[in-house]
Amino acid sequence: MEKYDVVIIGAGPVGLAFSTCLARWGYRIRHIDNRPEPTLTGRADGIQPRSLDLLRNMGLKRKIMAHDPAKVYEVAFWDPNPKGIHRTGTWASCPKFIDARYPFTTLLHQGLIERVFIEDIEKNGVQIRRPWTITGFKNDGKDPSYPVEVSLAHVDGTSRETVRAKYLFSGEGARSFVRDQLGIKIHHKDPIAHVWGVMDGVVRTNFPDIKMKCTIHSDAGSVMVIPRENNMVRLYIQLASSTDPDWNPRKTATEEDVQNHAKEILKPYTISWDRVEWYSVYPIGQGIAERYTLDERVFMGGDVCHTHSPKAGQGMNTAFLDAVNLAWKIHHVESGFSPRSMLSTYEPERKLIAENLLDFDAKYAKLFSTRIPSAGEVAGAASNEPEENEFVKTFKASCEFTSGYGVAYNPNIINWGPGHPAQHPLFLSYQKGTNLRTGRILTPATVTRVVDANVVHLEQEIPLNGSYRMYIFAGLPKQTTTAVKDLATYMANPTSFYSIFAHKDSSKDRYHERDNPHSDFLSLCTIFNAPRPQIFIAEMLPAALACYRDHVYADDVWDQRVPNAKAAAHTKMGLDESTGGVVVVRPDGYVGCVVKLVEGRGTCEALDQYFSVLTGKKLGEERAAL
Amino acid sequence: MEKYDVVIIGAGPVGLAFSTCLARWGYRIRHIDNRPEPTLTGRADGIQPRSLDLLRNMGLKRKIMAHDPAKVYEVAFWDPNPKGIHRTGTWASCPKFIDARYPFTTLLHQGLIERVFIEDIEKNGVQIRRPWTITGFKNDGKDPSYPVEVSLAHVDGTSRETVRAKYLFSGEGARSFVRDQLGIKIHHKDPIAHVWGVMDGVVRTNFPDIKMKCTIHSDAGSVMVIPRENNMVRLYIQLASSTDPDWNPRKTATEEDVQNHAKEILKPYTISWDRVEWYSVYPIGQGIAERYTLDERVFMGGDVCHTHSPKAGQGMNTAFLDAVNLAWKIHHVESGFSPRSMLSTYEPERKLIAENLLDFDAKYAKLFSTRIPSAGEVAGAASNEPEENEFVKTFKASCEFTSGYGVAYNPNIINWGPGHPAQHPLFLSYQKGTNLRTGRILTPATVTRVVDANVVHLEQEIPLNGSYRMYIFAGLPKQTTTAVKDLATYMANPTSFYSIFAHKDSSKDRYHERDNPHSDFLSLCTIFNAPRPQIFIAEMLPAALACYRDHVYADDVWDQRVPNAKAAAHTKMGLDESTGGVVVVRPDGYVGCVVKLVEGRGTCEALDQYFSVLTGKKLGEERAAL
Repeated sequence: MEKYDVVIIGAGPVGLAFSTCLARWGYRIRHIDNRPEPTLTGRADGIQPRSLDLLRNMGLKRKIMAHDPAKVYEVAFWDPNPKGIHRTGTWASCPKFIDARYPFTTLLHQGLIERVFIEDIEKNGVQIRRPWTITGFKNDGKDPSYPVEVSLAHVDGTSRETVRAKYLFSGEGARSFVRDQLGIKIHHKDPIAHVWGVMDGVVRTNFPDIKMKCTIHSDAGSVMVIPRENNMVRLYIQLASSTDPDWNPRKTATEEDVQNHAKEILKPYTISWDRVEWYSVYPIGQGIAERYTLDERVFMGGDVCHTHSPKAGQGMNTAFLDAVNLAWKIHHVESGFSPRSMLSTYEPERKLIAENLLDFDAKYAKLFSTRIPSAGEVAGAASNEPEENEFVKTFKASCEFTSGYGVAYNPNIINWGPGHPAQHPLFLSYQKGTNLRTGRILTPATVTRVVDANVVHLEQEIPLNGSYRMYIFAGLPKQTTTAVKDLATYMANPTSFYSIFAHKDSSKDRYHERDNPHSDFLSLCTIFNAPRPQIFIAEMLPAALACYRDHVYADDVWDQRVPNAKAAAHTKMGLDESTGGVVVVRPDGYVGCVVKLVEGRGTCEALDQYFSVLTGKKLGEERAAL
Repeated sequence: MEKYDVVIIGAGPVGLAFSTCLARWGYRIRHIDNRPEPTLTGRADGIQPRSLDLLRNMGLKRKIMAHDPAKVYEVAFWDPNPKGIHRTGTWASCPKFIDARYPFTTLLHQGLIERVFIEDIEKNGVQIRRPWTITGFKNDGKDPSYPVEVSLAHVDGTSRETVRAKYLFSGEGARSFVRDQLGIKIHHKDPIAHVWGVMDGVVRTNFPDIKMKCTIHSDAGSVMVIPRENNMVRLYIQLASSTDPDWNPRKTATEEDVQNHAKEILKPYTISWDRVEWYSVYPIGQGIAERYTLDERVFMGGDVCHTHSPKAGQGMNTAFLDAVNLAWKIHHVESGFSPRSMLSTYEPERKLIAENLLDFDAKYAKLFSTRIPSAGEVAGAASNEPEENEFVKTFKASCEFTSGYGVAYNPNIINWGPGHPAQHPLFLSYQKGTNLRTGRILTPATVTRVVDANVVHLEQEIPLNGSYRMYIFAGLPKQTTTAVKDLATYMANPTSFYSIFAHKDSSKDRYHERDNPHSDFLSLCTIFNAPRPQIFIAEMLPAALACYRDHVYADDVWDQRVPNAKAAAHTKMGLDESTGGVVVVRPDGYVGCVVKLVEGRGTCEALDQYFSVLTGKKLGEERAAL
């Protein structure tokens, strides 16, 4: 019987992102999908600014952008007026108060996105078997190393196989065999369901905002306009709601019905279709799975765990983050970097985000369905400019969330907080020595790489390699010489977080290894508050840090957001420009903890304590090496 | 006998760039190269910042960058000291005073760059025939439409063919059959020749600047270090010079000789090679062809016309610009947009640049070869920091040129100047109403596209489509309403520059044509000094301008270079923020003329006069339409 590290069911966004990570990190994978080929039409979703960061961190962004996707920088709001509709305002899709590298939403056919992942997975030796489906599974523990038995079959029933696996992952979508078998219930947060008509096509129109994302409320109904690649436009029209007196979840409409409806809504503007690429009517309700796993062997993610209306454009993004969150945790458990208890953080972290998403979606969907009073009805209003309605207000308030930067994990063993088992006076927390918040992504910062003088994005410098990322902000070199040296000395202690996971095969030549010369457990960056030409790595850094020579940076690039800072990266992190600090970032890019950089053993001690909790090992206990 | 618009000999940078343009614009091409396949190793050149702009304008930049080339932001200078060598300073490869989108040099294997072009050429239906060579040609005019007869043969002599062409283009490289046959002499500007050793490989070293571009002068000799893709480094070592007492242009050296030489030069640092990808020794002298064409039917470009030392990294860049300069002129003549006399501007424009390049190269090569006084010899110097030597001074002074932004064409029929046949009081010139200089590229400016709110690079908005680019900077909408309307009204005159080349097949549906809805002669952009949401294209622009609806922009993006400007793009062009102005840019991106935007007929009149000279037609003569 074939044995795999992971069996993955489903090759939509969550399954593909999960498979991509684990395939790169060398796991043996059986990946199946019940569709004969990747998504052909429709089913697009927006890629949030934050997801684009993630895709870049995976080295996939350029391939996505090669398809010339549409980019949404602004959303326009249209409301009824006596002549039909008029624009009442616009709002940035990712406003300036959010510090985003890519302040726009990227719209591209889901099939093209899937293909980018598939190509990468195949490069790492994994083939997705299609059309295959799962017919059964059990965590019977008969083989303690591969406790899960999974039965798979070709959809036409001609072939079957039974394999054993360490883990089973379901990314099957809303209708999940695995979830059903486990008897996990879907909790319907918002009982209201809707029937949607969605149409992708090339149009001709004099509606001026056809290339913008728009929400249009008219006396004839509401429509959402979303631009697409290849000169296409997607229209979402709500056809029925469970709050309607004649509610019928099987309500349908022809292509022509929807077009005529859109024509009515867009008046006084005209619209016609050159071609329709895809048209569909589907009912959708909100739902969230009560559990994401029962045994920490069989996991679920993506639409299996949460479904909601398409308007917020969050499905694919949430799926990506589900996948990456689980992938690195499994990787750490399997690498011996973490005890199995690490896996228990997946469900609470990701379920919280799904709940936030459903709350937002319910509010947004409700407001979208609400009839906006037409101009005649508000004629009494004094101002020329109509008051911002609830819909616009909610939209604005939700920008941080919808851009992906509002994702915040609560304190737990990974995200340090006052209740964390590791307690040391040198831990810094939000507005107490740092601007960083644990459970949130590292603030973007532009710095100069010392070895080649390239101006780079610090938060992207370590790829998604499954390692913790340790950023030593080393302040002014003259002030921190001893602190940096001491940190390196204590890190050299054989029981430190740094030493205990050092590569075993010390004879292997790692001269050209850029990100993991010393260990797969962490990658390390050092950032000095000094101009690049004044930084000499061999002279200024102890060997333990100097071996990450491609990850030494000068904090010497001016930043518009902190125009008066001398060291913009230090300042953006809220760290002292002179004395710096140490930031530990999780493998998925979220801040784990921030520690003060001091002379003596304190800094390493705090880090040892933090990593002791994560790794389940007593780190730094013996200091014989000193 | 087969007939072609163009026969192209050689598939190096100049031939490929030329072929790419003409293939896109629909010409029938016979393209041959005498090598059996594209360049495999070596022969890399840096892509200048300006060339990267050009590649992006051709839609090829992303494919180049997909290969993860090395990027050179800074150059380091190393000089002798008592212990060996020490860094005396660094200098930006494209300093801040140059307004560049990409302030770095891109280093990538020439073969990979060639493949990007070849793929594009093939997409447009042209196959490069290899290994084929030219065996003869004559402009016998026997067929007035296809006056040139060209004989081609497979290099092994098994096949031959004779074809007729409108044009023959030689991009054969330094050894050119075409140039020899025409009896065109190479003028050796600098009589000094050098023998170079060049080595590409993966090294291990403690020399800290191995990932930088460096020029190293030591008591043991000089070397130039250039980083490459795939963790490689190129070393250039000068092995001999015609000024040596024992000069021998056939001097050679083994791989080991060169490595040992490099080891001596780099002391006290160590270096060794993990592998050598390519190694070559070659003599090189400077040369410039006396003519680039004799009959304006048979043309030459690239290394056929100019050779120089590799150090300046300018060969490929000059080749690209030769190609694009000629391609659009041939396109305009063949499209009936210009009289044949347009072709006479190719040689003077491009030869001037080659002469500047050779002047720079000679000076640079001489200084590079000069022995720098070693530390002992300058011990008497007062300052701790050594004085900047001539080499560094020359390097700094040449940055604008080496980045590609110093390319400046002299006034001629295309580049308006005080001596231009078109004289009208509304023409603006440098520091007289504009900061733009004719014959130089359009200043980069970031604006917001109105239709989709995308933040875009204005100078890139019109692709390399062979059309003139007309930028109407329309200032404050309220102030220029009449001026813009009047301009459009006069442009509607059937004999105006705008109307005379209108598409003939007016029945064809051009609704989705973004860049050329009205004519292939020009593309048109309108830029308002107004926030994007206040710009309504249909209401604010006359139909002639509104049909370029994807090319209407809001000048509402803050720019660090003009921090106090309200309309940064207007200000950077040196145009009045309220009243604007009209900028005509050549199809290759260089400014042709700048005209004041006024009410009445003046603006269109000046443009008609300018284009009358370029097109050889009396434009705007009749105003019956008004």
